[in-house]
Amino acid sequence: MTEKLTHFNEQGRAHMVDVTQKQATRREATAYAQIVMRAETMALIREGKMKKGDVLAVAQVAGIMAAKKTPEIIPMCHPLPLTKVDVRFEEGAVTGEEALLDLYATVATTYQTGVEMEALTAVTAAALTIYDMCKAADKGMTIREVRLEEKTGGKSGDFRREGGQ
Amino acid sequence: MTEKLTHFNEQGRAHMVDVTQKQATRREATAYAQIVMRAETMALIREGKMKKGDVLAVAQVAGIMAAKKTPEIIPMCHPLPLTKVDVRFEEGAVTGEEALLDLYATVATTYQTGVEMEALTAVTAAALTIYDMCKAADKGMTIREVRLEEKTGGKSGDFRREGGQ
Amino acid sequence: MTEKLTHFNEQGRAHMVDVTQKQATRREATAYAQIVMRAETMALIREGKMKKGDVLAVAQVAGIMAAKKTPEIIPMCHPLPLTKVDVRFEEGAVTGEEALLDLYATVATTYQTGVEMEALTAVTAAALTIYDMCKAADKGMTIREVRLEEKTGGKSGDFRREGGQ
Amino acid sequence: MTEKLTHFNEQGRAHMVDVTQKQATRREATAYAQIVMRAETMALIREGKMKKGDVLAVAQVAGIMAAKKTPEIIPMCHPLPLTKVDVRFEEGAVTGEEALLDLYATVATTYQTGVEMEALTAVTAAALTIYDMCKAADKGMTIREVRLEEKTGGKSGDFRREGGQ
Amino acid sequence: MTEKLTHFNEQGRAHMVDVTQKQATRREATAYAQIVMRAETMALIREGKMKKGDVLAVAQVAGIMAAKKTPEIIPMCHPLPLTKVDVRFEEGAVTGEEALLDLYATVATTYQTGVEMEALTAVTAAALTIYDMCKAADKGMTIREVRLEEKTGGKSGDFRREGGQ
Amino acid sequence: MTEKLTHFNEQGRAHMVDVTQKQATRREATAYAQIVMRAETMALIREGKMKKGDVLAVAQVAGIMAAKKTPEIIPMCHPLPLTKVDVRFEEGAVTGEEALLDLYATVATTYQTGVEMEALTAVTAAALTIYDMCKAADKGMTIREVRLEEKTGGKSGDFRREGGQ
Repeated sequence: MTEKLTHFNEQGRAHMVDVTQKQATRREATAYAQIVMRAETMALIREGKMKKGDVLAVAQVAGIMAAKKTPEIIPMCHPLPLTKVDVRFEEGAVTGEEALLDLYATVATTYQTGVEMEALTAVTAAALTIYDMCKAADKGMTIREVRLEEKTGGKSGDFRREGGQ
Repeated sequence: MTEKLTHFNEQGRAHMVDVTQKQATRREATAYAQIVMRAETMALIREGKMKKGDVLAVAQVAGIMAAKKTPEIIPMCHPLPLTKVDVRFEEGAVTGEEALLDLYATVATTYQTGVEMEALTAVTAAALTIYDMCKAADKGMTIREVRLEEKTGGKSGDFRREGGQ
Repeated sequence: MTEKLTHFNEQGRAHMVDVTQKQATRREATAYAQIVMRAETMALIREGKMKKGDVLAVAQVAGIMAAKKTPEIIPMCHPLPLTKVDVRFEEGAVTGEEALLDLYATVATTYQTGVEMEALTAVTAAALTIYDMCKAADKGMTIREVRLEEKTGGKSGDFRREGGQ
Repeated sequence: MTEKLTHFNEQGRAHMVDVTQKQATRREATAYAQIVMRAETMALIREGKMKKGDVLAVAQVAGIMAAKKTPEIIPMCHPLPLTKVDVRFEEGAVTGEEALLDLYATVATTYQTGVEMEALTAVTAAALTIYDMCKAADKGMTIREVRLEEKTGGKSGDFRREGGQ
Repeated sequence: MTEKLTHFNEQGRAHMVDVTQKQATRREATAYAQIVMRAETMALIREGKMKKGDVLAVAQVAGIMAAKKTPEIIPMCHPLPLTKVDVRFEEGAVTGEEALLDLYATVATTYQTGVEMEALTAVTAAALTIYDMCKAADKGMTIREVRLEEKTGGKSGDFRREGGQ
Repeated sequence: MTEKLTHFNEQGRAHMVDVTQKQATRREATAYAQIVMRAETMALIREGKMKKGDVLAVAQVAGIMAAKKTPEIIPMCHPLPLTKVDVRFEEGAVTGEEALLDLYATVATTYQTGVEMEALTAVTAAALTIYDMCKAADKGMTIREVRLEEKTGGKSGDFRREGGQ
């Protein structure tokens, strides 16, 4: 690790990195988050899905809209023309009284800088929305392991998390 | 746990819960997040702090501004007149090559509904900002354990996480 | 009708009306919109509902979030602490090849000014979202009859549209 | 009509359609809305225009700013670099006690996806702003016939409403 | 001047000051800005006013909308329920080739903290909008003397600029 | 000066100028602002910098985020993909009891229209944030001389303020 933090200007202050000279190429990133909740809470989410009330449908819209809001939330992020945002959910194992929910967000652009933060913001907003909609039943829910899973495109090359899916 | 999910209307669809009849009382909530990074990355953050470049200063502004943006990010959240937002950082233990950074966000209001989501949104935005500003050096950084630590005020009573600080 | 337009200051220019001296009372408003579409488009919406893909679920989130955005969209609107937002859909009659979808949005607050614009903005955003999600199939869809259905509270008294529900 | 709704991913959930591979071409769209009001209300608007107070000037700014906000209002819309936004008003016929006001919004871009929603959002925000500024005098005003008038560019070809201007 | 900067927490970091215990009282603030431009530019603005094109009408809407956006622009500002926003323009003296335009913005609330920043943000946004709309003709326009003119209400007492109007 | 104001359409109303046919070229702009404050206030800012509390760090984040918000604040501004935003501070001379602080903001893009307004908005938001964070100590602080310092790129050619740095 010989790289320096790139978010500081000559005064040692934070700035938005100059990407004017960088090449616009296709870039894609996938972020992952996991929620741990009571098995009973997961059952309520599932039940809601069977009626019209669908916690995950709301979380998904939240994730997609948050991806577009990333440069308003993360101060040094560039505003980007996103060409794709997708959010997916997978129920994980139930261990005793605990159930796991996996969230994935994939974002793409053709631009001079990547979309890692957009994917991370999307998956986090979706997870927080699930917390919000279930907190009356389960305040102890925890978001675990928000992380970048994979990214492609850009000068720094591809990244794939070790042990990632 | 006999409560039902409260975010659905008679059609079984999501709505913003009616809090018109609820009492405006003082409410406060504290959320917590932890970031796991390389020890070298933590050293870069510290070093930056010693110059004027200060990753945590940017993260803190991000957290405070995100708290105010909560109803734009979490679809069913009420817009609230926040009376206090504070974000704090604590360096945790360094274990071999891994270092831990603890983040806390405390938010207060005097209103008909609580500020758990505002605290969670603040702490998450601060953590994502740290990721953004260090990702050139350490793409494998992970946000871990985003959770509600404590809340006071409101009809559902106080909440303090078991084993919480 | 002897009232004057109240949105102009002494210079004859638009301003945000001073409501500082007005009483904070409970206010509620319901707005209505109708979409006319092909019967086939309505069938696609219904079908989507039976899978997990749910046009109306997305439209509902859009409506609720737009209600909160009203003072950013309508220049002279006051920022308001909304205490309730609800959006409802009702399939109307199918006449030959045309199908009707009715949308209702109800918003409440306890404040010095009313929430008519919030209800109208919510119902309109929901209708536009339905257009967006169905436009690949039916560009000719039309939003018809966006109007205030009813309002209660405030000094100007209650209003109920003649012939309204 | 054999097209399917394109806003759903493999899980049957809503997503932002991937336009990464689409061609960036010039696209333009015009949307139309009509407001029905009392003839007296129209007179007040006209009178305001003769002073400096100008309801339509405020509505026009609202429409232009709303066009830029479209991806924040319509969940599955892509953020777009708009290259033109224009809003126009035309007084229609007065029939007995009723007067008509026609609104047009034209939006252009050079991008991978069209600007129909931007034009529709602009014209709707302008119409709602007129309602807001006149509602003290005429709560019964109705927005009628919000629709896409015409679009050019893009793979799906040009569209011109039958019977449209 | 013995006061300390109040925007820092125990860690010496910026936070949003806790106003939970403060009294909600009526507060009002007026800010002032002056623009210096070529006399010819002022003539163009005036001329525009005589047609329907009205630079000041757009600037005024910009100022009012910016006042509502203050907590999104100024990081440590509390979100506030504004009860009044007004923007006024006064043509000042023409000295040789230079003309002066005075701008005033007045904002009111009943809340635990004041509206100085809202008034300053409004007047600044209005001034920048005038620059934007005239810059094709006069890039050398300068905004001068953005300042707080007067404030009333709140524990720190009233303030009136020495030599102010 | 023979140019006309370009922000008006055929109806004489404001519109967002059509830049569809313009060439996308590299454009950069630098804006300048100056704050006059008491020498004691400047000392407090400096002192804060030596601790972790750093008024200028917050102001800088505010400036960068405001640059991205420009099309939401200035009504006729195009939304732009900014490729660089930088904010710098320089302490000026202390004259008796008065101290000066110079602010510079530089913004770049590769697009069909320039970034003068983005640079001006950044520098103004940074200056207002300094006012906000010091106003408890010095309400008389004044922002002076907000102006465009320099711009390069675009059909209208380069601009450099006479007597500018």
